[in-house]
Parts: sequence; C-alpha cells; structure tokens
Amino acid sequence: MTSEYRLRRSVHFYETDAAGIVHFSWFPRYMEEAEHALWRAAGLSISRPASGIGWPRVAMSFEFYRPLRFEDEFEIQIRITAIEEKRIHYACLLRRGDTQLASGTMTIACTNRAPDGTMKSMPIPREIAARFQVAESTS
Amino acid sequence: MTSEYRLRRSVHFYETDAAGIVHFSWFPRYMEEAEHALWRAAGLSISRPASGIGWPRVAMSFEFYRPLRFEDEFEIQIRITAIEEKRIHYACLLRRGDTQLASGTMTIACTNRAPDGTMKSMPIPREIAARFQVAESTS
Amino acid sequence: MTSEYRLRRSVHFYETDAAGIVHFSWFPRYMEEAEHALWRAAGLSISRPASGIGWPRVAMSFEFYRPLRFEDEFEIQIRITAIEEKRIHYACLLRRGDTQLASGTMTIACTNRAPDGTMKSMPIPREIAARFQVAESTS
Amino acid sequence: MTSEYRLRRSVHFYETDAAGIVHFSWFPRYMEEAEHALWRAAGLSISRPASGIGWPRVAMSFEFYRPLRFEDEFEIQIRITAIEEKRIHYACLLRRGDTQLASGTMTIACTNRAPDGTMKSMPIPREIAARFQVAESTS
Repeated sequence: MTSEYRLRRSVHFYETDAAGIVHFSWFPRYMEEAEHALWRAAGLSISRPASGIGWPRVAMSFEFYRPLRFEDEFEIQIRITAIEEKRIHYACLLRRGDTQLASGTMTIACTNRAPDGTMKSMPIPREIAARFQVAESTS
Repeated sequence: MTSEYRLRRSVHFYETDAAGIVHFSWFPRYMEEAEHALWRAAGLSISRPASGIGWPRVAMSFEFYRPLRFEDEFEIQIRITAIEEKRIHYACLLRRGDTQLASGTMTIACTNRAPDGTMKSMPIPREIAARFQVAESTS
Repeated sequence: MTSEYRLRRSVHFYETDAAGIVHFSWFPRYMEEAEHALWRAAGLSISRPASGIGWPRVAMSFEFYRPLRFEDEFEIQIRITAIEEKRIHYACLLRRGDTQLASGTMTIACTNRAPDGTMKSMPIPREIAARFQVAESTS
Repeated sequence: MTSEYRLRRSVHFYETDAAGIVHFSWFPRYMEEAEHALWRAAGLSISRPASGIGWPRVAMSFEFYRPLRFEDEFEIQIRITAIEEKRIHYACLLRRGDTQLASGTMTIACTNRAPDGTMKSMPIPREIAARFQVAESTS
C-alpha cells in the first residue's frame, strides 16, 4: 500500500514571473504532479474518463517560505494524511536541498459523473482505497 | 455573417516571465480568446461537448515584434482569411496603441469525436459555416 | 481608501482541464487578478520594478464548492481582512449568479529586493498603506 | 559543440483542456523546455539576469498531427537549423513512439537589456556561439 511519494523536479522558465521567481499558482500544480506520481506508484491513474469517476479538489492551502528560481532543482514530498469514505487528504513539503520552500495541503473528493456532466460525491471504490494508506507521521 | 473581431485586453501578472515580459506561449492563448469572442459574436460557442464536434488546432505561427509587460493594454484583431470544406484559417494582429506587437495565423479543423475519443475530420456543418465569411483584406 | 473589489470574468478555454472544468490552479490566478484590480482602484500598481519593492505571497487557501466551465460568467469579490505592519491579508468569494463557487484567502508580504535578488520583509510604505483599509464584515 | 537534444516527457493533467487533449499553447512550452535542456547540455544557462543578455523569441510555428492525452509519454527532439550573427533558429519534432505528433520551428534573438528595460539586438557573444553548431540534416 502506497502512502507517500517524493518527486524531483526543476523549474521551467515559463513557471517564473516578472518578479524573477516561480509564480505561486504553480505550487498547486507541483503538488498535483506529485499526487499523480503517487497514484502511478500505487498502480493507478487518477483520470480514467471511461470509469465515470473523477477526483475534483475540494480544498487546498499553501504556505510559502522561500522563492524558487529558473532551473532550481527541488523535491516535492507528498503524503496521505487521512482517508475518509469519500475523500483523501494530502500534505506536501517542497525542499531545495535542506531548505524548506513551501508546505501545502489538498483534499480531493471521489465523484461520479452523471451523463449531464454534473458530479456527485460517492464512496471511494474498494479497489482504489485498498492501494493507499495514511503515511506515518514523520514531522 | 461574422468575419473579424477586436478584443481589448490587459496583461495579467501571471502571464509575465522572469525576463519581465509576457511569455511567448501566451500569444496563442490571446489569439484563441479573440477567436472564441468572434464565435460568440456570430451567436455560437466553439465548444459544445454534447454535439460531438470539436475544433482542434492543426497549425499556428507567430512573429513577435515588441514585448508586452504587466498591465499593458493591447488589442487583438482576429480575421477569417479562408474557409475550406473542413478547415477555417485565421490571421491576427496584436497592437498596443499604434505599435504592432505581434502577428499570427491559426488553422482549425472540424472534427467528429468517436465514442472511443478519437477525432476524425468532417465537413463544417452548414449552420456553422453560414455564420462566417472571409474578412476583406485590409492590409 | 479602498477595501474591496468585484471583478467580473468569464472562463477561457485554456483554463479548463480534461475533467471539463476549470483546473483548480486557476483560482489563485483569479484571486490575484481581482487583487491587482483592487490596487488599480486604489491608484496603485502592485508591481513597480524600479521601486525595488515586491509583494510575494506567503500563504493562500481555497475551498471549492462548485465547478466552473468554459464561458461561464462569474464574479470574484476580494476584500482586505487585515493590514499588519508588513503584511496584507485578503479573503475572496467567487460566485456565478447566486451560486457560491469557491472561497479563498491570501496573505502578501512587503519586501525589499536587494541587488543580489534576495528579498527581505519591510514595513509597508506609508503612501501605500494610506490607500487601503480593512473591509467591513459582510458575511 | 551541441546541435541537438532529445527530451523525454509525460503529459501533466493541468496541460489538458476540456477537449481531453493537451492544449496547443503547451507545445511552445515543450519546445522551450527542450531548448533549455539543449543549452544545459552545452554547459550554458539561457537566462543569466546578471549578464544583461536575454533571448526573446521572435518567431515560432507549429503543425499539429495527433493529440496528446494525460500521462502520454512523448519525446521532443530539438535541432539547431541555423546560426546567424544575432539569431538562432531551431526546429523540433514531437513523437509518441513511432507516431509523429507535431513539428515546430522557433527563432530567438540575442538582446542586450538597457537599464530602462528596453531590449536591443546584439551579436551572439563568441563564448556562446562557440558551444553550438547547426545539426546535420536527418531527413
């Protein structure tokens, strides 16, 4: 069972802004990249359109400690912090070497897409829930 | 029948990069914004998932003359330059006041989405083609 | 003195993802657009490179209630919730008609850019602080 | 001397749009990622703010043959097609396995940033030009 993933990444030029640093809107994308890599490590893809199941984000939060710049290499560590009947909670930590750059949380909800496109929350399918577990606290 | 549209716009901070100017990948997005406004001016939406019809881009080109910076106000003028059985060709010009910033072209193809997600080109439906015409040349 | 701003906006196609809805990473950008419009309403630009002053984001949070789709029209209401010596706190609410779509918070820090590019927090200049005030609570 | 680079990449979810495929505005970004990897392979970084030298894009073009979808793995092959006194020309080819997805061209100009932020074209510095050469034609 998978509970955590570490993704290494470097900053692309188009992720920077006129202040010379990565625009803060990229941090949720970095976290999502790590989340999807976590799912692949669990043998799953988070997006299988034919299944009718989707995983919209219902909450996120970030604190930013240090800026990232073009070509900086950094690590995104994502951990599962809680698994509920219909939701998964994550936390992440971004580091460049020993320097903490940012921390974040994200919550996703399991939903069923109706033919008209509306999404209703539903219990996480057993075969998905069985692949994940909450990470041990390692603060 | 609609042949041309002028969209006014200003630069958002997240569109700039560490060189202090709008990243060039935003110009296709600016052109697409103007295209979709052109379609709305013709009484249409370019994306109606229930129709099964899609309009993938098959070609684009841009030349960049002057940079755009945060909060610059500019205009995107898009014109239809050709309508073929299955394709529409556009040209656009971006200006800030009297200064030409960039020019571009884009070609889109009318496609039918099969149930398996693959896209096949198809003739432009009559009720769509009837709304558009080629713009007069205005060098 | 300015304390609040309402920005009207519609969804661009490139803001949607393969789930057919606006990708959650766009909500911080929407909030920032409203913030910069708030600053302009106060007679200021948040980015004046020659001043050496910058406003990096130090925290943000969002809750997402309903999805946004291509060409949806919506409103971003941003309010100043606190002004500290070196920081400004905002809250925002996104609505489509009477439907609440999302709510968020964001904190920015006033910083001075040293010649080597590092940023140090500094007190908000008087001429900037004088333009803003905390919004009345209107839950 | 470096003339060509092949970058392997997979599609992130936030790169897709409501048509279920990668939005076309990502292809210039993919090409730029490969370009910057080419520069690193030559022992250079394309962005060194302290140098006062910048490399704005002056032209690009793309043709799109096949769509890319979430988690698709693909390769971007970039080649230098011409080196002029003040400009470098590239071509790229995107492939997924043996399937050609897209081809593109891009031209960048060597510029000197004046203290007021304006950019003037200038000859490519010898120590940069010496690292690159035009790629042999390979069909």
